[in-house]
Amino acid sequence: MSPEPFDAVDVIRTKRDKEHLSVGQIDWVIDAYTRGVVAEEQMSALAMAIFLNGMSRSELERWTQAMIDSGERLDYSGLGIPTADKHSTGGVGDKITLPLAPLVATFGVAVPQLSGRGLGHTGGTLDKLEAIPGWRATLSNDEVHAQLASVGAVICAAGPGLAPADKKLYALRDVTSTVESVPLIASSIMSKKIAEGTGALVLDVKVGSGAFMKDLDAARTLARAMVDLGTDAGVTTVALLTDMATPLGLTAGNALEVRESVEVLAGGGPADVVDLTVALAVEMLAAAGRPVEEPEVRAALADGRAMDVWRRMIIAQGGDPDAPLPTAAATEQVVAEADGVLARLDAYGVGVAAWRLGAGRARREDPVQLGAGVEIHAKPGDVVVQGQPILTLHTDTPERFARAHEALDGAWEVAPPGTAISRRPVVLDRIR
Amino acid sequence: MSPEPFDAVDVIRTKRDKEHLSVGQIDWVIDAYTRGVVAEEQMSALAMAIFLNGMSRSELERWTQAMIDSGERLDYSGLGIPTADKHSTGGVGDKITLPLAPLVATFGVAVPQLSGRGLGHTGGTLDKLEAIPGWRATLSNDEVHAQLASVGAVICAAGPGLAPADKKLYALRDVTSTVESVPLIASSIMSKKIAEGTGALVLDVKVGSGAFMKDLDAARTLARAMVDLGTDAGVTTVALLTDMATPLGLTAGNALEVRESVEVLAGGGPADVVDLTVALAVEMLAAAGRPVEEPEVRAALADGRAMDVWRRMIIAQGGDPDAPLPTAAATEQVVAEADGVLARLDAYGVGVAAWRLGAGRARREDPVQLGAGVEIHAKPGDVVVQGQPILTLHTDTPERFARAHEALDGAWEVAPPGTAISRRPVVLDRIR
Repeated sequence: MSPEPFDAVDVIRTKRDKEHLSVGQIDWVIDAYTRGVVAEEQMSALAMAIFLNGMSRSELERWTQAMIDSGERLDYSGLGIPTADKHSTGGVGDKITLPLAPLVATFGVAVPQLSGRGLGHTGGTLDKLEAIPGWRATLSNDEVHAQLASVGAVICAAGPGLAPADKKLYALRDVTSTVESVPLIASSIMSKKIAEGTGALVLDVKVGSGAFMKDLDAARTLARAMVDLGTDAGVTTVALLTDMATPLGLTAGNALEVRESVEVLAGGGPADVVDLTVALAVEMLAAAGRPVEEPEVRAALADGRAMDVWRRMIIAQGGDPDAPLPTAAATEQVVAEADGVLARLDAYGVGVAAWRLGAGRARREDPVQLGAGVEIHAKPGDVVVQGQPILTLHTDTPERFARAHEALDGAWEVAPPGTAISRRPVVLDRIR
Repeated sequence: MSPEPFDAVDVIRTKRDKEHLSVGQIDWVIDAYTRGVVAEEQMSALAMAIFLNGMSRSELERWTQAMIDSGERLDYSGLGIPTADKHSTGGVGDKITLPLAPLVATFGVAVPQLSGRGLGHTGGTLDKLEAIPGWRATLSNDEVHAQLASVGAVICAAGPGLAPADKKLYALRDVTSTVESVPLIASSIMSKKIAEGTGALVLDVKVGSGAFMKDLDAARTLARAMVDLGTDAGVTTVALLTDMATPLGLTAGNALEVRESVEVLAGGGPADVVDLTVALAVEMLAAAGRPVEEPEVRAALADGRAMDVWRRMIIAQGGDPDAPLPTAAATEQVVAEADGVLARLDAYGVGVAAWRLGAGRARREDPVQLGAGVEIHAKPGDVVVQGQPILTLHTDTPERFARAHEALDGAWEVAPPGTAISRRPVVLDRIR
């Protein structure tokens, strides 16, 4: 007889045959996978069975809890102030975390923002901040605690002790076509966020060509699953569904996005970035039990309070907020071939172009080019004239321009002058 | 860019999303898996997607062909006589290959029977024959050829060069709950049988508690898929669906089944074993283009012709057909508690009991006890009296008796005296 209480073959068969996984089966399979007793090929068969047959709400809740229990769970109750965090499902030009974390902290709510790196066509917050000379992503739990007490905001890498089962499973899903599954995405995100110890959580679920979720219904389903998981775990959780048909702001790329974020913190910046930052800050403050009206939140960007926290946050992690940002060695422009109105600028196309220019990575171990990316000079609805630049492409390796242009082929469109282009609002729906 | 023409992640996604795998995808994924470029965890995700989403007839045909192409393909056309083989999907007490191969060979049709070992509650032909002192299962391709020419029948292990992709995939399916899938079973069996080079093939698809396929419809679906694959590959293929609700014959266990097979070859033996042996021989001879009437086939058992071939076949592989067979160190009996009629004797229960007594193995590397198993003294429909033995259990390790008795609990039933018990015929249907 095996000393293990369950057999992986039976657990896989249960889900394969559309039956409910028991609490005991779920707890065991996650723990045994973390210990290496359940083999990678067994977990991938189970992941595919979950992908195709789904999980009930109670299965998903237990699965998420088991992933949390695979590692440590942080606790900020000793800070004496509420905590709030934001998670975005990932988009093109999504630099919102950079201005948002210091903005929320100005209102006395601590922001323990554990972030990731980019993979594929969406960028990663840590890659962006590493464009700031000296800034370091890796902090100990004690350093995070101390910085939350002194500055009020931290953006850093999640430590290895947090939901290790999720780390293994995430890497496995990547190579086995089991990524785009609502229960697997929801449990992956929420296990990390709940283990991270935040008191309130606002989810930014992206919808559109540049996002995981291409349509609103699928995004709503994912948002609902995650809000339920957070709420059941005692974390006040709200989700905004936000547009990712076109890039957010006017930049996609690491240093380019830091520059734009600093503009927002200086009271300027593109309207869509400011609007989404403010909307998410209002939600985070309300969820943390410290509601603040929108005009007051906007004021904290305009009067420099958020910038003060930003500077202290960067300095606390070794960065120099006044150092010049890296720039790419070469640029090329994409220009309008006729007068008219920009009718469409596709987020996915811009994201892939930025990725191919060197802003992103194809494999987890690849380096990124800090200066590479795409600068956007016109957004849908803007009037353009023949010969005007629509985009500027930045890279250290000019041989990449050709493949970036290919990605942009068909990704933008100029309509005849006078055509009315309706702009989708940034926030499409709210789930709680 | 990768030098591989496809990406495993895309191939998995195709089947996951219920789309057709292309010829190129199938050929590549089987070849790349054999080469180790497609990882075990990727193939297991694909196997689960196939399990749940199925394969079309054209996908299945190509998948099987790709598995054949992963290794060598044997060819017996140089023998100058037709060849025929039989494959059973596995049952309890299924020793039919032992009398069948020499019986068919007596009529001038060569039988290249590449067999396997037992795993779980069903026995394996090679384990049974290894009960004969000196007999060896492993022959080179040249030895197989020579023995077919001189004796006309060979029962031996499939060489490592035959469908190596299937060998890897079979072991993987075993640990990932992807065994009971019609396309995966059909392609596994048929790739080996087609690569083996037989000209005609008769499939014995077992139906009932002791078989993979518990009901007739599922067995028909599997039989249809395999007959189509064989026919499409130019192998004349017929399937019989045969009963496996109760064990075949009066023994389950290695040496016990050899003894019973020799009784059949001596013109005696249980009626169900004789009937199925004759039915399958008639099918094999017809499929090989050498049709023989049933009475003439029965005569070859009664008059010792089949026994002559058996003896030469055993001797050619180093065995001594006259040596005493191993017996188990200990026996225990299961007795009737009342007078009546045996209403039911469950194949699965008897199979598990024989397995637990030591006749089978739990892991591929375990040894088997040659003398262990279950002897059956009454079959459904037989009158029994109180205190009469129904079964005799044999093992070298008496501590196993308790677990064997547990497996038999509820596996047999005595009805009041005079109850009419209808016996299912051995052959339930024929598919071609």
